[in-house]
Amino acid sequence: METPILQRINQPADLKQLSLPELTQLAAEIRQLLLNKVSQTGGHVGPNLGVVELTIAFHTIFNSPTDKVVWDVSHQSYTHKILTGRKQAWLEADHYEDVSGYTAPEESPHDYFNIGHTSTSIALATGMAVARDLQGKAGNVMAVIGDGSLSGGLALEGLNIAATLKSNLIILVNDNGMSIAEDHGGLYGNLRELRETKGTSSHNLFKDFGFDYQYVDDGNDLATMLAAFKAVKDSDHPVILHVHTEKGHGYQPAITNKEAFHWHVPFDLQTGQTLHPNTNESYVDVIHATLEKELADQTPITAITAAIPGGYDLKRFGRLHPERYFDVGIAEQESITFAAGQAQQGLRPIVFHSGTFLQRAYDQLSHDLGINKLPVTIMVSGGRISAGDPTHQGVFDVAMLSNIPNLTYLAPTTKEELAAMMHWSLQQTDGPVAIRVPSNGVHSAPLADFKPTQMRTLHTGHQVALLGVGSLLPLAESVQLQLAAKHIDATVIDPRNISDLDTTTLAQLKADHQLVVTLEEASLSGGFGEKVSRYYGDSPMRVLTFGAAKRFNDRETTEELLHEFKLTPDQIVADVQAQLATLK
Amino acid sequence: METPILQRINQPADLKQLSLPELTQLAAEIRQLLLNKVSQTGGHVGPNLGVVELTIAFHTIFNSPTDKVVWDVSHQSYTHKILTGRKQAWLEADHYEDVSGYTAPEESPHDYFNIGHTSTSIALATGMAVARDLQGKAGNVMAVIGDGSLSGGLALEGLNIAATLKSNLIILVNDNGMSIAEDHGGLYGNLRELRETKGTSSHNLFKDFGFDYQYVDDGNDLATMLAAFKAVKDSDHPVILHVHTEKGHGYQPAITNKEAFHWHVPFDLQTGQTLHPNTNESYVDVIHATLEKELADQTPITAITAAIPGGYDLKRFGRLHPERYFDVGIAEQESITFAAGQAQQGLRPIVFHSGTFLQRAYDQLSHDLGINKLPVTIMVSGGRISAGDPTHQGVFDVAMLSNIPNLTYLAPTTKEELAAMMHWSLQQTDGPVAIRVPSNGVHSAPLADFKPTQMRTLHTGHQVALLGVGSLLPLAESVQLQLAAKHIDATVIDPRNISDLDTTTLAQLKADHQLVVTLEEASLSGGFGEKVSRYYGDSPMRVLTFGAAKRFNDRETTEELLHEFKLTPDQIVADVQAQLATLK
Repeated sequence: METPILQRINQPADLKQLSLPELTQLAAEIRQLLLNKVSQTGGHVGPNLGVVELTIAFHTIFNSPTDKVVWDVSHQSYTHKILTGRKQAWLEADHYEDVSGYTAPEESPHDYFNIGHTSTSIALATGMAVARDLQGKAGNVMAVIGDGSLSGGLALEGLNIAATLKSNLIILVNDNGMSIAEDHGGLYGNLRELRETKGTSSHNLFKDFGFDYQYVDDGNDLATMLAAFKAVKDSDHPVILHVHTEKGHGYQPAITNKEAFHWHVPFDLQTGQTLHPNTNESYVDVIHATLEKELADQTPITAITAAIPGGYDLKRFGRLHPERYFDVGIAEQESITFAAGQAQQGLRPIVFHSGTFLQRAYDQLSHDLGINKLPVTIMVSGGRISAGDPTHQGVFDVAMLSNIPNLTYLAPTTKEELAAMMHWSLQQTDGPVAIRVPSNGVHSAPLADFKPTQMRTLHTGHQVALLGVGSLLPLAESVQLQLAAKHIDATVIDPRNISDLDTTTLAQLKADHQLVVTLEEASLSGGFGEKVSRYYGDSPMRVLTFGAAKRFNDRETTEELLHEFKLTPDQIVADVQAQLATLK
Repeated sequence: METPILQRINQPADLKQLSLPELTQLAAEIRQLLLNKVSQTGGHVGPNLGVVELTIAFHTIFNSPTDKVVWDVSHQSYTHKILTGRKQAWLEADHYEDVSGYTAPEESPHDYFNIGHTSTSIALATGMAVARDLQGKAGNVMAVIGDGSLSGGLALEGLNIAATLKSNLIILVNDNGMSIAEDHGGLYGNLRELRETKGTSSHNLFKDFGFDYQYVDDGNDLATMLAAFKAVKDSDHPVILHVHTEKGHGYQPAITNKEAFHWHVPFDLQTGQTLHPNTNESYVDVIHATLEKELADQTPITAITAAIPGGYDLKRFGRLHPERYFDVGIAEQESITFAAGQAQQGLRPIVFHSGTFLQRAYDQLSHDLGINKLPVTIMVSGGRISAGDPTHQGVFDVAMLSNIPNLTYLAPTTKEELAAMMHWSLQQTDGPVAIRVPSNGVHSAPLADFKPTQMRTLHTGHQVALLGVGSLLPLAESVQLQLAAKHIDATVIDPRNISDLDTTTLAQLKADHQLVVTLEEASLSGGFGEKVSRYYGDSPMRVLTFGAAKRFNDRETTEELLHEFKLTPDQIVADVQAQLATLK
């Protein structure tokens, strides 16, 4: 790929030498470069294509890192990375993995935070501005926040405090009008009105908060953005720069299908078609079949998502049952408390979450659902050990959910168990139930004598008992086979309930077992294995716990992590044998 | 006390028989009744005095519980309780304890949720309205939310979704103009402008969200409120009713000193003076002395609170160092992420929280502070087992904080240790540090060889080791004395760090100890004792864990709870002896 202008850019200062035609050419080069890599590796497409011009303009007008920009979610920071010394990660396939998909201070002095969750940028930038002022330092501070992120409570808390600052702060609202398609809330009506009136409407929530406000209608035009930044640079007070951009700008498939191209797996650059479609059976189908069955049986269910319908294919449900489908936008707290209100009045809401974003509703899970024992069902996806950025780890949900009183956290191991647990949750009225959707492919096995809160014994042996939580039940079975070959007949148990121990089953093990082994695809700290360890603390039972370390992993491969955490059959068998040796 | 009108009111329907003069008389009776009880028992004063009229008007115009009202925080629901069959709890001292200080579904069909945290009412009411519509039921749904609660992110998320509802919903913004005194943010500028223009300003954030909006200037006038409710009753779309009230209305000390009378201990009704001032030494003084010393040493500290300066007497700091003091209002997420921005740029912010409200910033603690290893210090108060409402329990902070990677949670036992831990936290740059302010009176002991993340051995014995976390170290010492009398020489240890185990010390215990006992004033589930249990799982060491059950307590006395949880010396000694007997 030819990138003659980009070749001259090694740091932001180099941009200042370029003419407007050269900057425009640079934007074209970067756009091609972004598409070239992301079509091969997958990643955020539309958000990055939309901000190429404003990123170039920022680094041309401002002086990073004296002037600082905080990217909300930071999934749109690819161009920023290219311009701040990291272009090799786009130019050379061997270096594609050198940088993360998010801002990362360890990569560059132009990045300040690891960010992957939404709505934090205004609060972070306000804090940075206060630090600048108190220390008598210089420079602009800018937050770039998309319209989708603006509905998160923290963004609104942030606006409220930012408005009171008496010094420089620029909040760029990158409005690509996407959220309006979904009509997620009243805020978006105002953004639309402001776009339609080119920022002149008397209805202006930013001005109501007390902000100086400026509107830019074509955020994908370089000259316009250069002028807009010049106008607000060195402002001595907070300014909202409301910039209208086009998500996916410059690539028709991403413009036509904005939602699919927000984040995309590898695709054919010419056609936009996915290269390797996943046609595997999925637990999503089990979930949808269960929802339809419940509705047929008159269970008054509703489905709620906080802006992540894709992972659960919830729009399918929304098309069939629009009056029962609610996408509250990026507003995780609302998703839970809104469900609490519904449940208290007799509905059976199901909230569809990923574990990492559900963290944003911890108090709502405890205060609104737990204390009130409201029968809300929460589906939790992404609970697993796997390669990923530190901001999207899937191992902390167990410690978060399993220690909230009155909340039952279930870990199904098969599609039959998943369906049965959903059904049980939707029929009971004792309290909230969360269900950890397994992540290791679809398993199937007949269910008999189903009691979701009792452990299920798959094989009764003696001496050693293997408790395999959810997706790790197959690992327990593998270990059992290896131990059997060594003439150790281990019991295999599916704990099912990971928030409250089935102490009847655990007590029975004391009779003829000396060692209990717990396997969980979650952080050991605060998790299931610790509960089992405490239970046996006053007895001679030995307990070995296997799971993730208490740390934020950062793109290690799944294989590396499982090996490090000793979550392989060979390692577990070795540890079991070593432990048994001490008991002889 | 004479309450001739109230005597006729046993349910809301009885109000409909009263004339306006009688309703006005009723308001006077209720106001006196509220003051009479709260001056003896303590409780929320100003919030309840401010809403007497609007509560009477609600129950006169609407038909509860077909028409439903959700009180935000619900600390202002005393009049509501008096009018919905619970007046005995104000009329007769013997019944004062019959009702809680918050709405409670177990008390009355006119209450729907246990609520004690802020900003939830709009989301709850929206959920109830959706449930009404989907089930074809009738009735109005109203949320009553104070201006102070409006800055919480969930309230703003709630407004955003409520605005899209196509049916009846009334959001009463009870604006007593209090927050403006503190200038907590841009939102309050708009509320002030709306008050000053009697709701006519073109700057109107509620209208910007798309709401129908109505303003009521005298919310303490019954005729006005009756008319206002008549006008919005049975609205077929969401309405904001912005009502201006006076906090503390009708009681001059509460009007003059609104903040002190928000919640007040027992006081003299004539003078408003506190009856039994607490003159004990407090850890708050230790904290302030430490802050001043750090500033004298040029540590670039700031102090941040989310609307609870009182418990830490932070206004004292604010008066001395206004440029370093930030009250972000009710916005817990903002308090942490704002601090993250400050810390990243070289400041050393200290965020002052109570454990129960800190729950609202869980993701910010993990994603913004933990992943980024930012040196923010978080003071955590209220971490204890004591009588209290289920919404304000102090036993869940350990499970929440101690399982977040990179975050160190420290539990000081004396004022010297508290000061040393604060100093250490403010000097280190490895990551966030939370400090659990002890709650059992001020203890003092000389510090030697201080390493805050290493366990401190107070007494070296053998066979049994007692690990007393924070405020329970004195309990460990009592147990040690009783055991010594029985010729058991137990080791006593102050763990100091409750998030990360000092495995060196724990390993050493294996040599000549058979039993480790953990004592923590926190929920055992997800807590310190479980970490210790897991550590010893592969060894013969027995572990007994003492702490709170995983449940929401509800106004049991501290003594009852400690006895039930076996947190008394006699019970622990008995359990230790029983366990040792099994080891012989």
